[in-house]
Amino acid sequence: MVSVTEQNDEITPSVKGFRAAGVACGLKKNGRKDFVLIVSDIPCAAAGVFTKNRVKAAPVLLDMQRLQTHAGQIRAVAVNTGSANACTGETGLKDAEMTAAWVADALGCDPLHVLVLSTGVIGMHLPMENIKRGIMLAREALGERWPEAAEAIMTTDTRPKLVSQTVREFNGSTYQITGIAKGAGMIAPNMATMLSVIVTDLALSPELAHEALQSAVEQSFNRIVVDGDMSTNDTVLLLANGASGHRASMRDDLSEFQMVLNQVCRDLAKQIVRDGEGATKFITLQIAGAPDDTAAQQIANTIATSPLVKTAFFGGDANWGRIIAAAGRAGVPVEPERMRLWVMAGEKLGQWAYASVPRDTPRYLAPPMQSPPAALLLFEAGMPANYSEADAAEIMRAGSICVLLDCGMGIGWAEVWTCDLSHEYVSINGDYRS
Amino acid sequence: MVSVTEQNDEITPSVKGFRAAGVACGLKKNGRKDFVLIVSDIPCAAAGVFTKNRVKAAPVLLDMQRLQTHAGQIRAVAVNTGSANACTGETGLKDAEMTAAWVADALGCDPLHVLVLSTGVIGMHLPMENIKRGIMLAREALGERWPEAAEAIMTTDTRPKLVSQTVREFNGSTYQITGIAKGAGMIAPNMATMLSVIVTDLALSPELAHEALQSAVEQSFNRIVVDGDMSTNDTVLLLANGASGHRASMRDDLSEFQMVLNQVCRDLAKQIVRDGEGATKFITLQIAGAPDDTAAQQIANTIATSPLVKTAFFGGDANWGRIIAAAGRAGVPVEPERMRLWVMAGEKLGQWAYASVPRDTPRYLAPPMQSPPAALLLFEAGMPANYSEADAAEIMRAGSICVLLDCGMGIGWAEVWTCDLSHEYVSINGDYRS
Repeated sequence: MVSVTEQNDEITPSVKGFRAAGVACGLKKNGRKDFVLIVSDIPCAAAGVFTKNRVKAAPVLLDMQRLQTHAGQIRAVAVNTGSANACTGETGLKDAEMTAAWVADALGCDPLHVLVLSTGVIGMHLPMENIKRGIMLAREALGERWPEAAEAIMTTDTRPKLVSQTVREFNGSTYQITGIAKGAGMIAPNMATMLSVIVTDLALSPELAHEALQSAVEQSFNRIVVDGDMSTNDTVLLLANGASGHRASMRDDLSEFQMVLNQVCRDLAKQIVRDGEGATKFITLQIAGAPDDTAAQQIANTIATSPLVKTAFFGGDANWGRIIAAAGRAGVPVEPERMRLWVMAGEKLGQWAYASVPRDTPRYLAPPMQSPPAALLLFEAGMPANYSEADAAEIMRAGSICVLLDCGMGIGWAEVWTCDLSHEYVSINGDYRS
Repeated sequence: MVSVTEQNDEITPSVKGFRAAGVACGLKKNGRKDFVLIVSDIPCAAAGVFTKNRVKAAPVLLDMQRLQTHAGQIRAVAVNTGSANACTGETGLKDAEMTAAWVADALGCDPLHVLVLSTGVIGMHLPMENIKRGIMLAREALGERWPEAAEAIMTTDTRPKLVSQTVREFNGSTYQITGIAKGAGMIAPNMATMLSVIVTDLALSPELAHEALQSAVEQSFNRIVVDGDMSTNDTVLLLANGASGHRASMRDDLSEFQMVLNQVCRDLAKQIVRDGEGATKFITLQIAGAPDDTAAQQIANTIATSPLVKTAFFGGDANWGRIIAAAGRAGVPVEPERMRLWVMAGEKLGQWAYASVPRDTPRYLAPPMQSPPAALLLFEAGMPANYSEADAAEIMRAGSICVLLDCGMGIGWAEVWTCDLSHEYVSINGDYRS
């Protein structure tokens, strides 16, 4: 019933009633595209998930307010790069409001129906003259320009991130979900340093949009770790304008939409990790057998943010002791004697372990944890397993590596996607503002 | 009353009744010293503070046991590098016991009166033939060889860490405190990846030794952060043999001893940070005005482990937004509008802020937070302060930098010492085991 049409260069990921543009207005050096405008011809239901950082950027504060009062009438989203408009006080809030007002002027809509996003350096005021120019240029360029929008939202990203999927109903009619994202650094559990805007021509109520987005973010953008930092600006927006004529009102429609939205978000999230600052390896980290899912997540995050683990992956060193040591300091009462650790090349692990076991199954009713096929056991019963260093080294040379840690204590389960820590990461971030 | 005699190359940091040796037995490459033996001619009171990691190395488990039953009779400590003897199961425990038994044989004492420490790669069994050779060589070399011991305990350290202080009483008699340490990587709050052995010829009961050591560690080794990882082996040992004839039985003696022990531990801890893997800058991070000391510590640790903050220091970039953003995600309900952030070159800050205010003072009785003299205000009232980028850049070029963050909420206070994150850190840790 769901037909997945991955975006590629030949496909225009068009979504009925939406237009997009990515233009250059001098926010980035070298004339690169740096400003995005996304417009719906008709009012949208909109939902947002925002950073949990106590220090929130002005655009985050503005969008949170507007989604409380005008979530059913959103018409446009403007995104600037170059400045995060965070830690900019009253001026920052006024600048965010001014940006929205100028966009509303250009489109002939109510300023309260415009959302704004910013990404870039913290503590720098928005260069409002450039913003004004960006709005004018973008208005002229509006069209099915999703690739340009995906390019213009980038900061230290090396590749644009654009995903589009077509959902085909039994009767042959379709609706579309298209999303763009930026990521690269400051990617932490609980929302990465990332912005993402996802649009669909399905009709949704603001409440259903919010529910669907929260659930999708929980299993995508909240599962990625680049460096463990969490930004002041992290935002994911979902806009649904209903221009396809489809309405997700019944539970079945919604569960199909949710499935595709999850996939779009996971795709974008994985693209963010794959393009993490300086990343050379994509790492899927699965924690099984923890006391509960929260504990599993805690262990996963501790391993995924450990500089020692990340540099070992960069070096291609199967230094599993660092993984076990990180698990040991995660604040969960793990016991090394019960742990087992596997690695394998690739990222399609299937559903090992307890991921598919209902969360309320008592431990003694859960199926015993099987050794995953084709994976190499490194650690068991408190000591190194009997494996060959050559086999381990070969796995560690892969561009994608899976790690599975069974804690042997319960059915708690978590999966995160992360990357290694390279010289390039240090170069990029030692030199960010210059 | 206390005369501080810093160790230098011409001074032998001799402690009555103790002998030490550092020898090479093939655990490190290139014939470098790699094995340490420290012996007391008479039984010592001993105390230990150990890693809080749930995954504890065999020597940690062994020492914890022995200090429960034989803390008043310890005669020797053996330290091997090359292998951490962690994640090595039953074999690891037997190897640790065997090491202690061989040392006891060599010295003619009870195996239960010997402690052992290991540092190096996790998951590697101890090469017992080398250990045996190390014990034999070290026994022959025993003497006032503290510099050799400090050298032999090193792993990725670039400099030996040895501190010695003489305490002179009114009547002219003296006692000595001498300590060696290793650190370099995997340095986290709550004990770094570090080993330290501190000896004194003062007489102490095991209980007093333990109390004094815990208190000293709390304000020294627990205040340093290199990369936020916490090892399986972290240990600080204190041995007191009483050979000076002094006994700390009265409160006055003890408080003097405590003061000097604190200073020895802080010196060693700071040396560890200064020699952090790849470190190019020493950073003193002070958090004031937090709701309480625990919250202040939490904010300090979050900032000190943030890769974005650490790479900005490496790059000499006064990117204070990353510091504010890290504080915002520390799990403390800070408010950007109340925060103020200063930086200055150097590390002697004195007691700014509320460090010296009694911990139970209500906020309204505490003196108002003064701007520290000679410091540059970067952030205030939710926005950038009016400072010159050139001034900030000059401070960031210094080898030692102080950062003070006032949260403006209470009198909670914390200070941690940390370092930057450099290319060299990635090189060292991407290539650890090869």
